[in-house]
Amino acid sequence: ARTGDAEVVYGAGKTPEQLVAILSTLHAKHPERAVLATRLSDEALHAVGDLEDAEIHLSARAVTLGPFPEPRGTVTVVSAGTSDLPVAAEAVLTARVHGAGVEEIHDVGVAGLHRLLGVRDRLADADCLVVVAGMEGALPSVVGGLTGVPLVAVPTSVGYGASLGGVAALLTMLNSCAPGVTVVNIDNGYGAGVFAARVARNAAPRKRA
Amino acid sequence: ARTGDAEVVYGAGKTPEQLVAILSTLHAKHPERAVLATRLSDEALHAVGDLEDAEIHLSARAVTLGPFPEPRGTVTVVSAGTSDLPVAAEAVLTARVHGAGVEEIHDVGVAGLHRLLGVRDRLADADCLVVVAGMEGALPSVVGGLTGVPLVAVPTSVGYGASLGGVAALLTMLNSCAPGVTVVNIDNGYGAGVFAARVARNAAPRKRA
Amino acid sequence: ARTGDAEVVYGAGKTPEQLVAILSTLHAKHPERAVLATRLSDEALHAVGDLEDAEIHLSARAVTLGPFPEPRGTVTVVSAGTSDLPVAAEAVLTARVHGAGVEEIHDVGVAGLHRLLGVRDRLADADCLVVVAGMEGALPSVVGGLTGVPLVAVPTSVGYGASLGGVAALLTMLNSCAPGVTVVNIDNGYGAGVFAARVARNAAPRKRA
Amino acid sequence: ARTGDAEVVYGAGKTPEQLVAILSTLHAKHPERAVLATRLSDEALHAVGDLEDAEIHLSARAVTLGPFPEPRGTVTVVSAGTSDLPVAAEAVLTARVHGAGVEEIHDVGVAGLHRLLGVRDRLADADCLVVVAGMEGALPSVVGGLTGVPLVAVPTSVGYGASLGGVAALLTMLNSCAPGVTVVNIDNGYGAGVFAARVARNAAPRKRA
Amino acid sequence: ARTGDAEVVYGAGKTPEQLVAILSTLHAKHPERAVLATRLSDEALHAVGDLEDAEIHLSARAVTLGPFPEPRGTVTVVSAGTSDLPVAAEAVLTARVHGAGVEEIHDVGVAGLHRLLGVRDRLADADCLVVVAGMEGALPSVVGGLTGVPLVAVPTSVGYGASLGGVAALLTMLNSCAPGVTVVNIDNGYGAGVFAARVARNAAPRKRA
Amino acid sequence: ARTGDAEVVYGAGKTPEQLVAILSTLHAKHPERAVLATRLSDEALHAVGDLEDAEIHLSARAVTLGPFPEPRGTVTVVSAGTSDLPVAAEAVLTARVHGAGVEEIHDVGVAGLHRLLGVRDRLADADCLVVVAGMEGALPSVVGGLTGVPLVAVPTSVGYGASLGGVAALLTMLNSCAPGVTVVNIDNGYGAGVFAARVARNAAPRKRA
Amino acid sequence: ARTGDAEVVYGAGKTPEQLVAILSTLHAKHPERAVLATRLSDEALHAVGDLEDAEIHLSARAVTLGPFPEPRGTVTVVSAGTSDLPVAAEAVLTARVHGAGVEEIHDVGVAGLHRLLGVRDRLADADCLVVVAGMEGALPSVVGGLTGVPLVAVPTSVGYGASLGGVAALLTMLNSCAPGVTVVNIDNGYGAGVFAARVARNAAPRKRA
Amino acid sequence: ARTGDAEVVYGAGKTPEQLVAILSTLHAKHPERAVLATRLSDEALHAVGDLEDAEIHLSARAVTLGPFPEPRGTVTVVSAGTSDLPVAAEAVLTARVHGAGVEEIHDVGVAGLHRLLGVRDRLADADCLVVVAGMEGALPSVVGGLTGVPLVAVPTSVGYGASLGGVAALLTMLNSCAPGVTVVNIDNGYGAGVFAARVARNAAPRKRA
Ligand SMILES: Nc1ncnc2c1ncn2[C@@H]1O[C@H](COP(=O)(O)O)[C@@H](O)[C@H]1O
Ligand SMILES: Nc1ncnc2c1ncn2[C@@H]1O[C@H](COP(=O)(O)O)[C@@H](O)[C@H]1O
Ligand SMILES: Nc1ncnc2c1ncn2[C@@H]1O[C@H](COP(=O)(O)O)[C@@H](O)[C@H]1O
Ligand SMILES: Nc1ncnc2c1ncn2[C@@H]1O[C@H](COP(=O)(O)O)[C@@H](O)[C@H]1O
Ligand SMILES: [Mg+2]
Ligand SMILES: [Mg+2]
Ligand SMILES: [Mg+2]
Ligand SMILES: [Mg+2]
Ligand SMILES: [Mg+2]
Ligand SMILES: [Mg+2]
Ligand SMILES: [Mg+2]
Ligand SMILES: [Mg+2]
Repeated sequence: ARTGDAEVVYGAGKTPEQLVAILSTLHAKHPERAVLATRLSDEALHAVGDLEDAEIHLSARAVTLGPFPEPRGTVTVVSAGTSDLPVAAEAVLTARVHGAGVEEIHDVGVAGLHRLLGVRDRLADADCLVVVAGMEGALPSVVGGLTGVPLVAVPTSVGYGASLGGVAALLTMLNSCAPGVTVVNIDNGYGAGVFAARVARNAAPRKRA
Repeated sequence: ARTGDAEVVYGAGKTPEQLVAILSTLHAKHPERAVLATRLSDEALHAVGDLEDAEIHLSARAVTLGPFPEPRGTVTVVSAGTSDLPVAAEAVLTARVHGAGVEEIHDVGVAGLHRLLGVRDRLADADCLVVVAGMEGALPSVVGGLTGVPLVAVPTSVGYGASLGGVAALLTMLNSCAPGVTVVNIDNGYGAGVFAARVARNAAPRKRA
Repeated sequence: ARTGDAEVVYGAGKTPEQLVAILSTLHAKHPERAVLATRLSDEALHAVGDLEDAEIHLSARAVTLGPFPEPRGTVTVVSAGTSDLPVAAEAVLTARVHGAGVEEIHDVGVAGLHRLLGVRDRLADADCLVVVAGMEGALPSVVGGLTGVPLVAVPTSVGYGASLGGVAALLTMLNSCAPGVTVVNIDNGYGAGVFAARVARNAAPRKRA
Repeated sequence: ARTGDAEVVYGAGKTPEQLVAILSTLHAKHPERAVLATRLSDEALHAVGDLEDAEIHLSARAVTLGPFPEPRGTVTVVSAGTSDLPVAAEAVLTARVHGAGVEEIHDVGVAGLHRLLGVRDRLADADCLVVVAGMEGALPSVVGGLTGVPLVAVPTSVGYGASLGGVAALLTMLNSCAPGVTVVNIDNGYGAGVFAARVARNAAPRKRA
Repeated sequence: ARTGDAEVVYGAGKTPEQLVAILSTLHAKHPERAVLATRLSDEALHAVGDLEDAEIHLSARAVTLGPFPEPRGTVTVVSAGTSDLPVAAEAVLTARVHGAGVEEIHDVGVAGLHRLLGVRDRLADADCLVVVAGMEGALPSVVGGLTGVPLVAVPTSVGYGASLGGVAALLTMLNSCAPGVTVVNIDNGYGAGVFAARVARNAAPRKRA
Repeated sequence: ARTGDAEVVYGAGKTPEQLVAILSTLHAKHPERAVLATRLSDEALHAVGDLEDAEIHLSARAVTLGPFPEPRGTVTVVSAGTSDLPVAAEAVLTARVHGAGVEEIHDVGVAGLHRLLGVRDRLADADCLVVVAGMEGALPSVVGGLTGVPLVAVPTSVGYGASLGGVAALLTMLNSCAPGVTVVNIDNGYGAGVFAARVARNAAPRKRA
Repeated sequence: ARTGDAEVVYGAGKTPEQLVAILSTLHAKHPERAVLATRLSDEALHAVGDLEDAEIHLSARAVTLGPFPEPRGTVTVVSAGTSDLPVAAEAVLTARVHGAGVEEIHDVGVAGLHRLLGVRDRLADADCLVVVAGMEGALPSVVGGLTGVPLVAVPTSVGYGASLGGVAALLTMLNSCAPGVTVVNIDNGYGAGVFAARVARNAAPRKRA
Repeated sequence: ARTGDAEVVYGAGKTPEQLVAILSTLHAKHPERAVLATRLSDEALHAVGDLEDAEIHLSARAVTLGPFPEPRGTVTVVSAGTSDLPVAAEAVLTARVHGAGVEEIHDVGVAGLHRLLGVRDRLADADCLVVVAGMEGALPSVVGGLTGVPLVAVPTSVGYGASLGGVAALLTMLNSCAPGVTVVNIDNGYGAGVFAARVARNAAPRKRA
């Protein structure tokens, strides 16, 4: 992993035994910094979670070992529906492991604009926004219209029929009229978290000055 | 045409001569009601527009002959960007020709929520809404969240790249979280206008009672 | 939920426990009006169905709590094949919960036009039609050609091969030549039900006058 | 060309000079049977049409040289809208050149079922049906439900938006619930004509017996 | 079912109990003619197969009740690989139930042209060919180049990766250069069987003359 | 426009006259800050470019009026091939108009890794990277593997065949293994420029400290 | 360019002036080896073709400057229809410029197997085959079944309707059952030519031994 | 199987009993050469693996019977991530069974260019390269830019969201800017192995000379 970045292991397609081995080794080598494993099966969550120093992050389906870095700057993660929560949780955890402070705003829908207008100040205070939505693919457009903060949109695979496994949300977000919106792969909370943490860490000193 | 509905001619792929002939005949047969020709080329607009009793509707790329029916009920047509105007104009004209009263609200964007909140009462007063948008495919979701009025969304082929000729807007609208939103084909202002006029006409007496 | 509309909970991706908790709370708050939970797993159907005042709607995979509103206007739900019945049932139930009276016509196919011609009067009597079909994606075109009633088409994911999980039916319906046809997402009986109920309720007084 | 079949030249992508040369040679070799050139540009239509013995078939964008075979059996070509006529004309001409008798029924729509019911006997009398439609992709389903005659459906590229250049009509036809319906490529009047002529020619003696 | 055609029940999505009830009733009404049930689950195959007079057709995943009609004309069903056999078997059985005589040629590949050239005479003797292939989507093109017999191509969902669940084979077949090739939906042995039987039955008397 | 952001006019689909009028008005209102018009036709470029204070940016197909803001922070725009230059130029200009300093690195290919390794330090010095590529859709992955700087990838519609008008490059970039890569719409240099300028401006003080 | 490979300039999107300048410079630097410019517009063909030492290759829409390398090994380029010739010509020229000897076999169709069987020996004698086809996407499967020679398939964008601009041919080729078949991008005669020349050059000495 | 090539059985969709029977027969007929069965289920792996002379290749999900041919030439198989290993293993085994010597380089990523630069000599020494990657679809472009060796790219179905089951990697590879890259179907290690072995065997003597 790049200096400053955490070591991250992609758990999908690895056995619990493989994961236990990889993570123990990485943690032993650098016990002073965090190691993150994402996309863990139930079985893997428990096997890895049983390691000493391990912390299970259930909704993110992830485990960490070792202490988190000192947070610098603020990433604010916004999500739409209940089913978007696991992807949002992956983004939150990843951003924290990569050194950012994180705020969370959940259950924000396009249909209930008042709730959104009510958190407007919290949105404007962020150094980078991550907006996670599946059926409410319009959410990043609306949030992007409310603030001038750099915004990373994460489409989720939640939905049915013409949602096409997240492709509809992805296209909606790519065509967003609000400038300053960029997009990552469907369900890629991890990628959004790394990106947003980098942006927020770089922006941080400005605030302290 | 069904009783009560206007006679409509689809101009695409017909020569100006064919259109002049068809429209003259239809108008001669029933001079007391409106005939509508849509999707006219420049050449056809002028050829047909030169007929006696003809009215050219430039932005809708359409021509009518004969008097419009008495308007009953209100269809409110909302559009997003400048390039969505021709499709909105087709919906407006079609709804009028099919016997509805029509209100228009243009240049309404997701990014500028205040403008949208400012017209909230006008939206709620409609018997049926038609929301036309291409790059702002999120607009029907947002409008649908503000009112309980039946809403027909019209995706337009405006946009580039991942807009896929209007397919992205279409998918966005089909996945709208706001219930009470239905969708028509890309650029199909005509279909939305017919549908909305039928809904509005049926709803009209209620208001008068 | 908007005044007049029922409270609806989307059951997919929620645990039976979560659903029991949400629905009990909503029902306790407003015991005098209906609460609807859709897209329930077998397990959730039974857990929620065991609540006092609960009514299980098996074919719609839904549960309601509390009394239905007085029906105003008529939504007529038409379906094509046996496998389209669950989506039709979701539309029927949703329309009733949202205050419309509902008629049902099932097993109507394009191949058997006589059956369709035989119900022509019932179709014309509706305030809003909902036509549900998967393999018979042509059905809304044919029904739309027979009546001037506003028609919402619901494509279903029934079929195989080039049905592409309902996308073929969706495209067929969007390209329907019969004007006055709008479309909702694949399998979205809920959305069609809400929309049709709104249209029918508004149209109702006219009939009584 | 297979014995009994005509010689056919695909004009797209060939220069008028190339076409004149190929067709003259083919015709000189077998002046007693028909040669067909399809998909001709305006320029090619005239260059080839100026040859001795040439007959221009304008709406099919084709030219023939030499006498047509004695017709055996009946292919009935049904088309939906004005814009579907060129593809229907290609099917008609090809079937004739391949030795079938041809009947034509145009301007048949799903929305106007009465017109369709009125030609029911003519449909049933055919040895093979060819049904050509773009925006009315539902037509073959409906016709197929009315008869037990083998039916070849030809989707056309007519339409806009979600018609996807004919792909929507193609999918509609492939998913047709009426059994006994097969499909050819979009705009492929030629392929449908060859197929239908083969079926009709083989079926012919039965009728004479 | 149309006169002369068999009664066919589509088993997918029906319970064994429903199927037993429907089939018993249909058979009791017309014990003198065949009833066919397709797309049966293992469970349904056995439940229905236990009825008196029932015959199980395992590889076609189908059951018939009652006597088959006297065969007229010849449908020849050609298949490519082992995995294409169930679809071929559905076509074979359907054609027989619809009154055609059937020949079968299996395990015919494009790569082994000699095998194909060896059966050339049998291909030419058919009244209608049905060619079933998934990974060897090129097969109908090659067979169509060898004969002038009407040919129905059936793409199967066999394959992986860019086979896209049969869509690649479907496209290959629609673009076939050999004229006289028509196509049905992916895995639709039933549709091909009905169509081919109709063609073959009509062609039959010719042979007897 | 949001405070701090420039006023930007999207030129596609507007007439030269409309553009001249809009831009004159905007510039007259705030002559002290920059106005940007993008996606201009040849005709519009000249009409608008003839205004007083106007500067034509030919390769970006854009015009600006008024002085640019003081640059803060550094956006580095990297492009792959000659045909990607107009999109890169749009990103460069937009970032400058939105207050960032800009560096440019062109003609960087995946095949010539040495050139890329040679500019590694310049890449690392940026506050935000914008990587523009069509046929070399792999470029952002490779650049993202070389640096820890936030990176916005812009797919272009350059290419042919399976490039699918930029969709192939878009998908490549969304699936990039290098974390810290986000994506904007095909050819959307404008969106990337706004986003990157916001990131760079926020990061700037850190460097000065 | 890699040692041994020729210098190649991709002409699409470059002006005639740019091309003249680039090619003159490249040729002046290494007059002893070939420079190739592909995808030239009519205008560019003539501008570059007027240079001293230039040779115009009209059907390939390409120009070369300087002497070709001594040919080693044999690439045999097979094409299906007239419209596939330009892509085949690009492959032929590219292979020659990259040092291979080239044989050509044109107008080979799947429907006329005899012609194909007649050239079987020539196919077997090649060191690498390039098979170019659009509408006859099945051709590489058939050729690949006849020989054990490494085969590169080139889909072309020739065709209409469900050919989807070459995507159908591409998918057909990717799913080819004949092993030893690889594929390049649609219309990419250049890529196939480079690849095949490398394979053939490496295989050459074996033949001489 | 073609002379010189091994007999290969495609295990998917065959029962363990069928596979045991086919493989025993093939092996008994030619005990002196290798038989290969690919795509085996767990059950089939063990059933076939229990045969005398059988060797199980677990990661390739394959079994061989009989001795391998003497290796000639070198195929070097490069893979990106852990999840790409089974496809790489299928390519390795197939190439060996088809008579090539094989080298393997695993865990090579675009993000870690140094690792790739470190194996540059091994890449250049191959007679044919096979590059297997899913999420790192850019890898063949980068490797192809480093060497002049013929390169076969194998996209894998590894990934999520916009990876579209391997289609994104496939498109990336087809659009690769590095010439000399050809592609096989998603997950088709078998096809790449056969192709590469043919190329390597033909190139071999050159090296020995
Ligand atoms: N949830 C995730 N989604 C996408 N990529 C991930 C995820 N988690 C980790 N990664 C990437 O996978 C790499 C590790 O892959 P591996 O060596 O297979 O564990 C990390 O460096 C990350 O770049
Ligand atoms: N079957 C359904 N399909 C689509 N949306 C639904 C369905 N049922 C409920 N909803 C929507 O989901 C919202 C509730 O979502 P939730 O808060 O997650 O329960 C409701 O207000 C409805 O708009
Ligand atoms: N395997 C099959 N594939 C497609 N359609 C079928 C199949 N089997 C039966 N059908 C059609 O389904 C109709 C019966 O449907 P149902 O009334 O639901 O049993 C028959 O009349 C056939 O047209
Ligand atoms: N893993 C594989 N992927 C694709 N094709 C394969 C594979 N393994 C074997 N084959 C092909 O399948 C043929 C055998 O098919 P079968 O007769 O059904 O076993 C072989 O000759 C190969 O061409
Ligand atoms: Mg959501
Ligand atoms: Mg818009
Ligand atoms: Mg149905
Ligand atoms: Mg039509
Ligand atoms: Mg097959
Ligand atoms: Mg590029
Ligand atoms: Mg071709
Ligand atoms: Mg990979």
